[in-house]
Amino acid sequence: MKTLKVGMLGAGVVGSQIARLLIANKSDLASRAGANLELVSIAVKDSKLKRDGIPAALLTNDAKSIVNDPQIDLVIEVIGGIDPAKELILTALKNGKSVVTANKALLAKHGAELYAAADKANVDLYYEAAVAGAIPILRPLRESLVGDHVIRVMGIVNGTTNYILTKMDENGAAFADALKEAQALGFAESDPSADIEGFDAAAKAAILAGLAFHSRVTDNDVYREGISKITAADVKVAKAMEMVIKLLAIAELTPEGAVSVRVHPALISRTHPLASVRDSFNAVFVEAESAGQMMFYGKGAGGAPTASAILGDLVAVARHKVNGGIGPKESDYADLKIAQIGQTKTRYLIRLNVADKPGVLESVAHVFASHQVSIQTVRQTGAGDKAELIVMTHSSNESSLSATVKDLKNLPVVTDVASVLRVEGVN
Amino acid sequence: MKTLKVGMLGAGVVGSQIARLLIANKSDLASRAGANLELVSIAVKDSKLKRDGIPAALLTNDAKSIVNDPQIDLVIEVIGGIDPAKELILTALKNGKSVVTANKALLAKHGAELYAAADKANVDLYYEAAVAGAIPILRPLRESLVGDHVIRVMGIVNGTTNYILTKMDENGAAFADALKEAQALGFAESDPSADIEGFDAAAKAAILAGLAFHSRVTDNDVYREGISKITAADVKVAKAMEMVIKLLAIAELTPEGAVSVRVHPALISRTHPLASVRDSFNAVFVEAESAGQMMFYGKGAGGAPTASAILGDLVAVARHKVNGGIGPKESDYADLKIAQIGQTKTRYLIRLNVADKPGVLESVAHVFASHQVSIQTVRQTGAGDKAELIVMTHSSNESSLSATVKDLKNLPVVTDVASVLRVEGVN
Ligand SMILES: NC(=O)c1ccc[n+]([C@@H]2O[C@H](COP(=O)([O-])OP(=O)(O)OC[C@H]3O[C@@H](n4cnc5c(N)ncnc54)[C@H](OP(=O)(O)O)[C@@H]3O)[C@@H](O)[C@H]2O)c1
Ligand SMILES: NC(=O)c1ccc[n+]([C@@H]2O[C@H](COP(=O)([O-])OP(=O)(O)OC[C@H]3O[C@@H](n4cnc5c(N)ncnc54)[C@H](OP(=O)(O)O)[C@@H]3O)[C@@H](O)[C@H]2O)c1
Repeated sequence: MKTLKVGMLGAGVVGSQIARLLIANKSDLASRAGANLELVSIAVKDSKLKRDGIPAALLTNDAKSIVNDPQIDLVIEVIGGIDPAKELILTALKNGKSVVTANKALLAKHGAELYAAADKANVDLYYEAAVAGAIPILRPLRESLVGDHVIRVMGIVNGTTNYILTKMDENGAAFADALKEAQALGFAESDPSADIEGFDAAAKAAILAGLAFHSRVTDNDVYREGISKITAADVKVAKAMEMVIKLLAIAELTPEGAVSVRVHPALISRTHPLASVRDSFNAVFVEAESAGQMMFYGKGAGGAPTASAILGDLVAVARHKVNGGIGPKESDYADLKIAQIGQTKTRYLIRLNVADKPGVLESVAHVFASHQVSIQTVRQTGAGDKAELIVMTHSSNESSLSATVKDLKNLPVVTDVASVLRVEGVN
Repeated sequence: MKTLKVGMLGAGVVGSQIARLLIANKSDLASRAGANLELVSIAVKDSKLKRDGIPAALLTNDAKSIVNDPQIDLVIEVIGGIDPAKELILTALKNGKSVVTANKALLAKHGAELYAAADKANVDLYYEAAVAGAIPILRPLRESLVGDHVIRVMGIVNGTTNYILTKMDENGAAFADALKEAQALGFAESDPSADIEGFDAAAKAAILAGLAFHSRVTDNDVYREGISKITAADVKVAKAMEMVIKLLAIAELTPEGAVSVRVHPALISRTHPLASVRDSFNAVFVEAESAGQMMFYGKGAGGAPTASAILGDLVAVARHKVNGGIGPKESDYADLKIAQIGQTKTRYLIRLNVADKPGVLESVAHVFASHQVSIQTVRQTGAGDKAELIVMTHSSNESSLSATVKDLKNLPVVTDVASVLRVEGVN
């Protein structure tokens, strides 16, 4: 049996698990790949540090030596970030090595350049682990659904924010307290902004949108709102309406044939399949013309789950090296436009604190009507100084809705616009 | 751009949708496959019959002419059944054509012979549509999880039985009434035995087991029980215990390293992800060593969803014809043994009608203990002549459990063993 030499860049949370599994499952992986996969070198920042289960002789702090080593056939990149990951991957590809990576940040920003380099070198660049960890979602989108037309992809793709929102829903906790709990348990980093402000989800949304719609989409194309403004009061209202708040990464076709790609918190019905995705689990809901509605559910992060996805890709690219051929390339033939957020249509739930006087509802309704935003339901709670109006709109343009909210804020009877939330999963 | 000629065998529920989509989505499919996919011939039983959207000139009743036509590159088989599908596929493969099929019955019985023929001819034999319709599950198992060790696959893979069980759960309907409703709505055939006796699910279980465990598994290896004995009383008890009854196709690794593969109704907790799979939807729950728990959910049947899966496969095999290479082959290197059902361990829920006398519980408990079946909980309901004992066991061998039930039936204080149901999704 042939032997393929594997070099790995990084041995952190994910890389250490990959190394462990490559060694422990050597013989199964060989049977499945049709070649021995021999881990010959691992680049880290600190090559002097002892690492459990990793032979010290494999470690180097010279990452370039790996991507330039003519003996090495396959490269795994699990350093993360743009620099030096980008140059290392480009060099590996140019040198004829197939590359497997989990680097969503890099792919969302420089995907086009990397795909072109892989194409030019006629090697594989695989990255199933970059979105939703262990859940097979990129391969199904790229291969299983390639004979269909995807209409919408809607995912819970960030475990940290889903954990926080789950705790807020379960315990009525405030955002800050739920975040602290997540940090204490290791579900959120000490600087949590990449997660809670939606940057991580936005990178994944860009990758999903590009594959689903055969177009080029980068992180800059993604409209983004995080969850830090979600209050316990929002969660309580959602509950009362049998809904739940989730941070969603959405990529959908607009009626005009553009792609709307966005990340924001949204209300969904408790009966929606995504509503039962709790804690740090991830799930991606896909709607396609012929296939209908699908959902893919599982662990979105963690060393071992992410390593599982990386090794699946590694076996695939190894098979290609053994048997010839190459995986399907990124296709951007459809070249769809990105829809402006102002033109994106959704339903909204708006909570207003109002004076409890006759005529309040009339003046509020007038503001909505003046912007062609039509109201589906209005509910009034409390009384006296604390009266609250909860307005659910029909599907409306984001720009009309923004204009409505601006005018509501200036309305004398409105003390405060307490919150504005999108409602997804209904038409 | 190159043109690949496609021949199709069958134009029924699935075939007619494939033909429609091949024509309607011609240009998208070409961009994605890298070649025009031209449907040149369709075999049917009655070639004189007019068919909506299908040019009459494409129809023939000579299926052999398609698989022997040297002009044809790719063959789609959607006739179903063993004869003549098997010979037609074998001939097509031998003649160097890649084949895409949805024929689970054939693959579960003669898979090994067909895979060997494809291997010998160095062409693709793809069949994503054979299990769970539009849901990408075979490709994820075969490719995405190839670097991992699957521990268990547990699926709701038959829409008809899931529809019936959902109605029994929602309305407290009797089996016969729910079946009649399903037939009236077209969710069950007039002869429903392939579905309700679990034959269809068993074929799918065999295919899933083979892929998950890299072993050869045929429909004869699958232990099978249908749902026709499930009563409204069973459903009621399940509900009271916050569980739901589902027909499950299970393939799992036993502690001895064999594969247990079986289809039977079972109780699962209402909090299990499979519990919320309702009506005719399908879902497959997968547990793997590194990836953890995953679920794949969607439409398991229907013309358009099944056609979506077929077209995904068609584009994949077309790409291979254009770019060289070939998809991953079935691997059976692990060659695991099939576990006997007697050795399979599960938990059980047993309902007994008993006399309401002192000492009843003692003699019942004695029978369980004598077969080393340990009891987790006992609940007594009713009183007088109608007393009922509901016993939940810990995990037990099927053979010990059967011996227990036999002895219980002979116990004077037991009037009747009302039902014996497996409990899944807990350890
Ligand atoms: N963690 C997850 O659950 C998860 C899930 C999905 C995707 N991902 C992605 O997987 C990638 C890796 O994540 P991770 O959590 O494993 O990161 P990590 O724990 O921070 O590990 C990074 C590794 O890269 C090494 N490294 C950093 N700079 C280097 C340089 N210039 N040259 C050589 N080695 C260098 C570090 O070396 P030292 O060990 O010496 O510091 C460390 O071993 C990222 O792209 C991430 O987005 C992670
Ligand atoms: N229906 C689903 O939802 C579904 C889902 C997943 C998988 N599948 C699988 O897909 C396959 C097709 O199912 P289906 O529901 O489309 O079946 P179907 O509606 O019964 O269609 C069968 C087709 O095959 C043709 N045919 C039968 N015998 C033939 C012969 N000897 N030579 C040439 N043509 C012949 C029939 O011709 P006529 O039209 O002239 O009668 C008909 O067009 C089966 O393997 C099934 O298990 C079906």
